[in-house]
Amino acid sequence: MADNNKKMVEEITSMEVDFGRWYTDVVKKADLVDYSSVKGCMIIRPYGYAIWELIQKQLDERFKATGHENVYMPLFIPESLLQKEKDHVEGFAPEVAWVTHGGSEPLAERMCVRPTSETLFCEHYANIVHSYRDLPKLYNQWCNVVRWEKTTRPFLRSREFLWQEGHTVHATAEEAQAETEQMLNVYAEFCENVLNMPVVKGRKTESDKFAGAVATYCIEALMHDGKALQAGTSHFFGDGFARAFNMTYTDKENKQQFVQQTSWGVTTRLIGALIMSHGDNNGLVLPPKVAPTQVVIIPIAAHKPGVIEKADELTARLAKSFRVKADKTDNSAGWKFAEYEMKGVPLRLEIGPKDIENNQCVLVRRDNRQKYFVSLDNLEAEIENLLNELGKAIYAKAAANMDAKTYDCKSIDEIISARAEKGEGFVRAMWCGEEACEDEVKEKTGVGSRCIPFAQENLSDVCVCCGKPAKHMVLWAVAY
Amino acid sequence: MADNNKKMVEEITSMEVDFGRWYTDVVKKADLVDYSSVKGCMIIRPYGYAIWELIQKQLDERFKATGHENVYMPLFIPESLLQKEKDHVEGFAPEVAWVTHGGSEPLAERMCVRPTSETLFCEHYANIVHSYRDLPKLYNQWCNVVRWEKTTRPFLRSREFLWQEGHTVHATAEEAQAETEQMLNVYAEFCENVLNMPVVKGRKTESDKFAGAVATYCIEALMHDGKALQAGTSHFFGDGFARAFNMTYTDKENKQQFVQQTSWGVTTRLIGALIMSHGDNNGLVLPPKVAPTQVVIIPIAAHKPGVIEKADELTARLAKSFRVKADKTDNSAGWKFAEYEMKGVPLRLEIGPKDIENNQCVLVRRDNRQKYFVSLDNLEAEIENLLNELGKAIYAKAAANMDAKTYDCKSIDEIISARAEKGEGFVRAMWCGEEACEDEVKEKTGVGSRCIPFAQENLSDVCVCCGKPAKHMVLWAVAY
Repeated sequence: MADNNKKMVEEITSMEVDFGRWYTDVVKKADLVDYSSVKGCMIIRPYGYAIWELIQKQLDERFKATGHENVYMPLFIPESLLQKEKDHVEGFAPEVAWVTHGGSEPLAERMCVRPTSETLFCEHYANIVHSYRDLPKLYNQWCNVVRWEKTTRPFLRSREFLWQEGHTVHATAEEAQAETEQMLNVYAEFCENVLNMPVVKGRKTESDKFAGAVATYCIEALMHDGKALQAGTSHFFGDGFARAFNMTYTDKENKQQFVQQTSWGVTTRLIGALIMSHGDNNGLVLPPKVAPTQVVIIPIAAHKPGVIEKADELTARLAKSFRVKADKTDNSAGWKFAEYEMKGVPLRLEIGPKDIENNQCVLVRRDNRQKYFVSLDNLEAEIENLLNELGKAIYAKAAANMDAKTYDCKSIDEIISARAEKGEGFVRAMWCGEEACEDEVKEKTGVGSRCIPFAQENLSDVCVCCGKPAKHMVLWAVAY
Repeated sequence: MADNNKKMVEEITSMEVDFGRWYTDVVKKADLVDYSSVKGCMIIRPYGYAIWELIQKQLDERFKATGHENVYMPLFIPESLLQKEKDHVEGFAPEVAWVTHGGSEPLAERMCVRPTSETLFCEHYANIVHSYRDLPKLYNQWCNVVRWEKTTRPFLRSREFLWQEGHTVHATAEEAQAETEQMLNVYAEFCENVLNMPVVKGRKTESDKFAGAVATYCIEALMHDGKALQAGTSHFFGDGFARAFNMTYTDKENKQQFVQQTSWGVTTRLIGALIMSHGDNNGLVLPPKVAPTQVVIIPIAAHKPGVIEKADELTARLAKSFRVKADKTDNSAGWKFAEYEMKGVPLRLEIGPKDIENNQCVLVRRDNRQKYFVSLDNLEAEIENLLNELGKAIYAKAAANMDAKTYDCKSIDEIISARAEKGEGFVRAMWCGEEACEDEVKEKTGVGSRCIPFAQENLSDVCVCCGKPAKHMVLWAVAY
């Protein structure tokens, strides 16, 4: 048993040796993804897709609760439509896939595979919004998008990914701003409560905002290795696209006005984020709310009379309250322990002849391997409680990681030595607001600006780079 | 009120005048779809997408209950991969969209946007299936696909559509055959019980089967206008793809074997099918199980004290058991009646001052406009009952339409005169099994073979075309 266990664990690279290889080992060994002959795209396998379905379901509930409706827009965008908003086309054209032929016929106008759907939503809204009575329109779409990335990595950066994109239009800038903030808050709450992942909310600098946006807001998470990951974005467009696409409405005074617009999105990247936030050298550690299997039941000494029957009975009973499965294969218990640790199943339930005799079972937490002998009489309550505890514990662990790896720096040299001595993390440092300084910090220290956090502190009065008066505290990091 | 009502109704073409225009009027007026500058593709609007979500949910439950798991495959298929199975590439290459550039760079090998994903699943299965212990693999995928159709129509035929595609591999041909049949039965049961739409189960003739299949099974429905619509297909592949993609496994005797394979799918076409099965001259009639709103509450004399409050109270109360919404806008009651008839909402609930006094409300069925005065005390039970009754009634109506429009014919002339005198429908006629006769029937009468129904009858001993001994009773029709 111990041998088997050891063998499994040895199959993945240790995080401390090579975090990048640990990550790709885990996504492969935990059966989340596979590769194919389609370069830069991934196959999302059943276990990975089940996580995405749970993310989708719980996000979608939140979108609907805030009044949003789902729609489906075409996959393709004609080149002329993509070109209507100048900043937008400049941002996206270099990284789109172009369709040039339908069957054997060349197309009159080539079309790109959507990298994002602002242009299509704009055209549609221009078509269906006429009066203030038609506003707001609060639409969302779940779909695939394509961006022709040069270097790819499962979940984190791939040529095709799955996401949701919310697109809304409003009568006033205030309403659109409120929507932008509301959805950023929905994302942050979701990351914290469902993915057990702490995030920092903030605004992107001018150089880093979405192509065509007035302002881009984001949530940034810190991975176990101290690199940052942008987990979600929410954009305020003002009337920029509205002017380009002639999206107008008649207000109560019968005047023509441009609509005010937002968009916001999260992607299958979130799966990458939760792997790198919670995983360890035994594999995945899944947040209970998105774990496809929350409890795996493992019969011990399964050949003994009554063991399999009891395992079946418990599976049926627990399936009423949890996502549960029993592994009744003839693999060794040790192999199974390692397998479900690799897969990050939050709780393992062991049931053997002695346990049955004592009307109990053994529960083992994935995150800290703590063992609990639990009476079968109040099993549901115990499991519920342990799943909650586990969720809180992995959140606390990730938050502690973020705290330990957040460094306040007052000079370029301090940033350089913090990185050298303490490793990657969030660098907090003051900034004058000039793009030249942002670029210089990146060039000299290697960390880029991630966001201007909403929660500002005055670390010093001057810019970390030029020494002129500081405008903002910025979060800097090396990012995925 | 009557005026408003009339006005709405006049906005759509009558079915009897032009069924095709009636259809496009309904999908537009009921806010199911919109057009865009992307030719041949549709925008699925919130009301249409909500129907698709309900279809997805109830089908997905059935897939999971029969042991299937969801996965996600890449959107693109490299040309060389598409070409691996000869029949398959011949069937699909003429109607695919080709991606030739990523950003500004031409691709080394062009890729098509998936028209279906057999080739990707084959490659993946070849990669992950090694032993009999790995079988069966029962995967399904919900996604978009693209086929470069020349003439398009919302839901029925568009260049992009949404669907699910099941792809399974098995150790034996018997198991794969059983899977093919099981999924056809799942589709038929779903169409009958969820969409309230009768279907005929059968097998496609050789000339009409899927590109690469040994046998294609299908369910065929008859639309209100007597034209047929293929509502779902299930294919048995044998080991054809397995040989082309080298999908092998080691059996219990340690011998290499090819896997046996199936695929099966239904699409957003089902929405077109239910519109044309149940709709009438007032618009949509939605099956209760896929109606985004099952009960619409309309306050009568809403300015009178207590009416809005009662409507709110009923909305909150009924929302616990049904998909319900209240229309509290200042549009007239007549306008609202017509609007929700257009949208096919199964039940309208009217509540006014008199009703409140009498502790009752009025329920009106969409299908037959029958009115019921119902006590508020047992409202849920009455609604439940009426929704069930409505589902049964529209099924019975569609079944009666199919019965009335099914014609048994013993000669080419009989087919021609049946079409001329009675209009379109299912023609049942015997066939010798020769493709030449199948083609001749089509050429001379205009009806094509839809399927060889599982439920065979011996209408005569000879082929309707050549007079030689008949092998099968075939269902023929003009089809969407």
